[in-house]
Amino acid sequence: MTVKPPYDLLFEPVRIGPVTAPNRFFQVPHCNGFGHLRPRGLAAMRGMKAEGGWGVVCTEEVEIHPTSEISPAIEGRIWDDRDIPAHRLVTDAIHAHGALAGIELVHNGLHAPNRISRLPPMAPSAAPVDSSDPLQARAMDLTDIRNFRRWHREAALRAKAAGYDIVYAYAAHGMSTLMHFMQLRHNQRCDEYGGSLENRVRLTREVISEIKDAVGDSCAVAFRFAVDELLGEEGLSVEGETRDIVGLLAELPDLWDVNVSGWANDSATARFEPVEGYQESYTAFVKSMTSKPVVGVGRFTSPDAMVSQVRRGVLDLIGAARPSIADPFLPAKIRDDRIEAIRECIGCNICVSGDYLNVPIRCTQNPTMGEEWRRGWHPEKIAPKASDDRALVVGGGPSGLECALQLGQRGYRVTLAEGSSALGGRSLLESRLPGLSSTARVKDYREGLLKTMAGVEIYLESPLDSDSILEFGFPHVFLATGSAWRRDGTGRENHRPLRGLERLPVFTPDDIMAGKLPAGGRVTVFDDDHYYLGGVIAEKLADTGCDVTLVTPALTVSAWTDFTLEQDKIITRLLEKNVELTVRRNIAEVLPGGLRLACTHTGRTEDLEADALVLVTARDANDALYRSLSAEPDRLSAAGIQSLQRIGDCLAPGTIANAVYLGHLAAQNFQDEDWDTALFRREMTALA
Amino acid sequence: MTVKPPYDLLFEPVRIGPVTAPNRFFQVPHCNGFGHLRPRGLAAMRGMKAEGGWGVVCTEEVEIHPTSEISPAIEGRIWDDRDIPAHRLVTDAIHAHGALAGIELVHNGLHAPNRISRLPPMAPSAAPVDSSDPLQARAMDLTDIRNFRRWHREAALRAKAAGYDIVYAYAAHGMSTLMHFMQLRHNQRCDEYGGSLENRVRLTREVISEIKDAVGDSCAVAFRFAVDELLGEEGLSVEGETRDIVGLLAELPDLWDVNVSGWANDSATARFEPVEGYQESYTAFVKSMTSKPVVGVGRFTSPDAMVSQVRRGVLDLIGAARPSIADPFLPAKIRDDRIEAIRECIGCNICVSGDYLNVPIRCTQNPTMGEEWRRGWHPEKIAPKASDDRALVVGGGPSGLECALQLGQRGYRVTLAEGSSALGGRSLLESRLPGLSSTARVKDYREGLLKTMAGVEIYLESPLDSDSILEFGFPHVFLATGSAWRRDGTGRENHRPLRGLERLPVFTPDDIMAGKLPAGGRVTVFDDDHYYLGGVIAEKLADTGCDVTLVTPALTVSAWTDFTLEQDKIITRLLEKNVELTVRRNIAEVLPGGLRLACTHTGRTEDLEADALVLVTARDANDALYRSLSAEPDRLSAAGIQSLQRIGDCLAPGTIANAVYLGHLAAQNFQDEDWDTALFRREMTALA
Repeated sequence: MTVKPPYDLLFEPVRIGPVTAPNRFFQVPHCNGFGHLRPRGLAAMRGMKAEGGWGVVCTEEVEIHPTSEISPAIEGRIWDDRDIPAHRLVTDAIHAHGALAGIELVHNGLHAPNRISRLPPMAPSAAPVDSSDPLQARAMDLTDIRNFRRWHREAALRAKAAGYDIVYAYAAHGMSTLMHFMQLRHNQRCDEYGGSLENRVRLTREVISEIKDAVGDSCAVAFRFAVDELLGEEGLSVEGETRDIVGLLAELPDLWDVNVSGWANDSATARFEPVEGYQESYTAFVKSMTSKPVVGVGRFTSPDAMVSQVRRGVLDLIGAARPSIADPFLPAKIRDDRIEAIRECIGCNICVSGDYLNVPIRCTQNPTMGEEWRRGWHPEKIAPKASDDRALVVGGGPSGLECALQLGQRGYRVTLAEGSSALGGRSLLESRLPGLSSTARVKDYREGLLKTMAGVEIYLESPLDSDSILEFGFPHVFLATGSAWRRDGTGRENHRPLRGLERLPVFTPDDIMAGKLPAGGRVTVFDDDHYYLGGVIAEKLADTGCDVTLVTPALTVSAWTDFTLEQDKIITRLLEKNVELTVRRNIAEVLPGGLRLACTHTGRTEDLEADALVLVTARDANDALYRSLSAEPDRLSAAGIQSLQRIGDCLAPGTIANAVYLGHLAAQNFQDEDWDTALFRREMTALA
Repeated sequence: MTVKPPYDLLFEPVRIGPVTAPNRFFQVPHCNGFGHLRPRGLAAMRGMKAEGGWGVVCTEEVEIHPTSEISPAIEGRIWDDRDIPAHRLVTDAIHAHGALAGIELVHNGLHAPNRISRLPPMAPSAAPVDSSDPLQARAMDLTDIRNFRRWHREAALRAKAAGYDIVYAYAAHGMSTLMHFMQLRHNQRCDEYGGSLENRVRLTREVISEIKDAVGDSCAVAFRFAVDELLGEEGLSVEGETRDIVGLLAELPDLWDVNVSGWANDSATARFEPVEGYQESYTAFVKSMTSKPVVGVGRFTSPDAMVSQVRRGVLDLIGAARPSIADPFLPAKIRDDRIEAIRECIGCNICVSGDYLNVPIRCTQNPTMGEEWRRGWHPEKIAPKASDDRALVVGGGPSGLECALQLGQRGYRVTLAEGSSALGGRSLLESRLPGLSSTARVKDYREGLLKTMAGVEIYLESPLDSDSILEFGFPHVFLATGSAWRRDGTGRENHRPLRGLERLPVFTPDDIMAGKLPAGGRVTVFDDDHYYLGGVIAEKLADTGCDVTLVTPALTVSAWTDFTLEQDKIITRLLEKNVELTVRRNIAEVLPGGLRLACTHTGRTEDLEADALVLVTARDANDALYRSLSAEPDRLSAAGIQSLQRIGDCLAPGTIANAVYLGHLAAQNFQDEDWDTALFRREMTALA
């Protein structure tokens, strides 16, 4: 294997304690919604990363004991020997491709309300758990601390028995007992585990040492440590104590895995951390304080940025979670000089939403993510065509692009017709909104590949009507004609059009994305959608000088963005831009010069002055073409059209991830006679 | 079996289509957090209900197809034949005690975002799903409707194969496609399934008929129908169309199961529906319109109320979900003339919170709920004592009462010492707050039984210090000394005491419950607890004429009460009582005559006038006694004390349910040598 310089640097092996990573690509631990519950899906997903060239592939956080379980989140478990066989599936899948398998042992302390085990949570000092659960953790006494150390040691031995090569101790994301011991705000102990920094680090030192004693002969011991909580003086910080912590433990672990905390900062979306390598300014100091290899993250998708990290001595190993999700074959593509084929993470955190909602991980860019075992999908391979039939895809947005790409990969001859002058659909339009530029990667990746494919013809500025589709007579037609935002206010809260809409200038997100903006003045954004768009539009209008009020019937602003770790940041940004936030209010009526708002709880009304109204409520599928064609089956068959289907937002408006997925699904199922016999494989609970 | 009149009426068999219920006690379908994921736990829990005398025991909602799945909620599944073996465990467990097994077949339509299956949701008309998911359901076409009917038929056949005796069609709680077709706000169809009421009921008629055709020879077909959505003209209502719907379908099902919608209305907490039988005014008309038996619910725990329902022709079968959770043996206790032993539901919806959080159901009153398989617990039986040792329980609150009761049931001689003049602890104190009177049932049940037990001695007004405990020399001491609300403002948001607390009169929940109230004027309740107590205290103070502002650092008011179906009702009540609600604000400093509040996102401050401050933040365990005793192990052993442990809030402050559970756990584990070898049995995913 000869890799072209400078990228050969990335394929150097790296010694980590008693083991050696085959290259510098390191899939750091990340949650995924499979965990202990879906071991076969998990193993297939992790194995795919190894197949794609990641030299180290780690688990998610793995709970070491039932006093630390954060159900309903579906994490790993290694409570006792009963858990070993499931882990063996994972390590086997990783080893099959020559990668190292790492396991992140975790005790969550006051982050764990123990909703299933019902055991009292434990913490350095007594305190409420950090969820809203009406429950407090008890302070650990010295017996608890002895048990805690023993649980780590026993878990490490089980991890070794399960085949792991790297065993983590974990003090990151604010989710870990070891971190809670270091934090002054959580540790008010007066014994040898509290007070001085050395005392607060004592438990970590003991745990790392004891894991090394237990398994260090054959396993590397890694320490994942958040060097900054981004809380200023309220938390651990580089300016504060974390340099000293690194100094105290410098040579103890075999590997330092460093990041920032909490999770929303570590896995910041592109909207809030647009620049690759955004953690460098925090983590860069670590290498100067230890001779051990250092891994860190920063949503790296560019091989040049990776090389730079290594050359400049910032990192030894290029850590990645999200980029490895968007493209499990990222290392292989660099190795094979196919950089243009990298499916770059857009930083949207749809992956996180899967885990957060306790369902298998998904990805906007990679529709095969989470489907490796269940549907047998592979991010780089797809079944060859079943016929020489030709297909027409109408619409070049996310779903049409993905469908055309996959049909093309299968070897079908595909014609893609886009009505506008550019491909991309909403992935292009939304990319022009504040903070969303990386959304264009959905288009860029697919457009780039499609243009290299001999069997695919692309026509821009080619809006099609039903007559022309009938005339063309492609035997298979996929309609990916998207959706349009409703202009009448109907959506979740309102089932009838708003009264008085003629009294104010009314805009929809489609208007805003098309550059048609309110003239200024007081603008109300009515958000009955609850994902990011209402907030983004409010931000854009504030940037253009409007006096913006965001009104929502929900209890919180941008409610669903909690699942993408963005909600707090969105609210902060809107408030800092002086957007007024009004929750629990519906629009009772549009007035001349304003709105009558009604409290969603009491119905009490109040009037709000407004010069314009932006409605972010719901969408209508652009399915007129489908309705017209499907209404006349005889004409379809006379025209030689054997199949006609809608995909993406034209079928069911949703996220971009959903549109890509539906386009992929249609291409996978196309002319597959068995596709609906069993919809997918399922992991089921053992009954014996 | 002879049951005393008038309760013999409740033990009459009731014919339901081709099957016969052995009595009138009917456990209606209820969710539980076991579902398809934890089939052995589920079977044991349902079987316990049958053992306790419920003549019919039903499942939770059971999804008939992957186009309807509400993951991460863990419902039943009968997607295909792979699901039958798990259901067979349930029906076998129910039949073992002579009860009938019912299954509630469900298609959730636009209530199902299909987060796992990733299939587009379906609805009568295109509309956003009813969660905040950024996803819309597509309108069902006639092919979809044919499939929908086939899925029901096939699911019914599988249900029969799995051994069910009663098969439900479901149109309740707003969570069902059949209901969505009836609702004008969700059905804008122009075909034979939309428009007139007869058209909107057509699909229900077809489904019920086709289930009867498929399995009606041996299975009864039930129809669960919400007769009122409590939305006035916006929804289905008795004043509107539901009488006509009942009229249209009157004799079609073999059984009518009627209630109100949505779930928060059907399963209203005692705080909002204090009166037994609270659904009668809505559902009573149904019996007059059908000759088929009718079952309904109303948190029935009193046999006289049940008899009255039957005598007055309101219901034929006494439906119950929560009362059957609090006491699976409720029917048996009526049958055996042990009415005083009924463990009455307090209507707190902790059961719902388990399901809502996707973990096994739990119950404040019945700590064995959800533990039947995992820990082998039985609500009425417990292992006999392992020795003749005596035990001292210090503290007569929920945990101490439960511990003493179970130790007593095991045959231990127990001394219970309570410092105050009455048993009950916080279950007594909180019961005096607005809407919480049923909380006293926690005390009433246990106190009633304890007073009949020869081996238990109770001492009131007996506060104990460590010297007296050492002097008594009981070999085993359980400390259930509870907790006290913090007076310094520390809790989730604040890790340091608030500044300026000396500048305002400050109260805690303990003050309020002790009758020490602010003198009036402007009172701020600072809620950093997020469960019910902050809102209850705000309500109480508003009732006494204070001008109340509730300030919370959370994004929503009473955040955790979302899981008990109370949040919307709490906010409405507070607003109606003119409590000002201020979210996203911490207290930066207490000022003379007010508070300086800081936005939790931007730090921006604003001042709020206040004459008094109530701090609902966190609690300190009352563990001084424990610390004093445990600090001197030599004195303990010299005094003959072999074991000393904390239980309940004294160990880890939490819910009353948690305190009862910890008291029960301690009594179960007491002198059981094997208790910690494997903490509990686990349901694990099949790997083969």
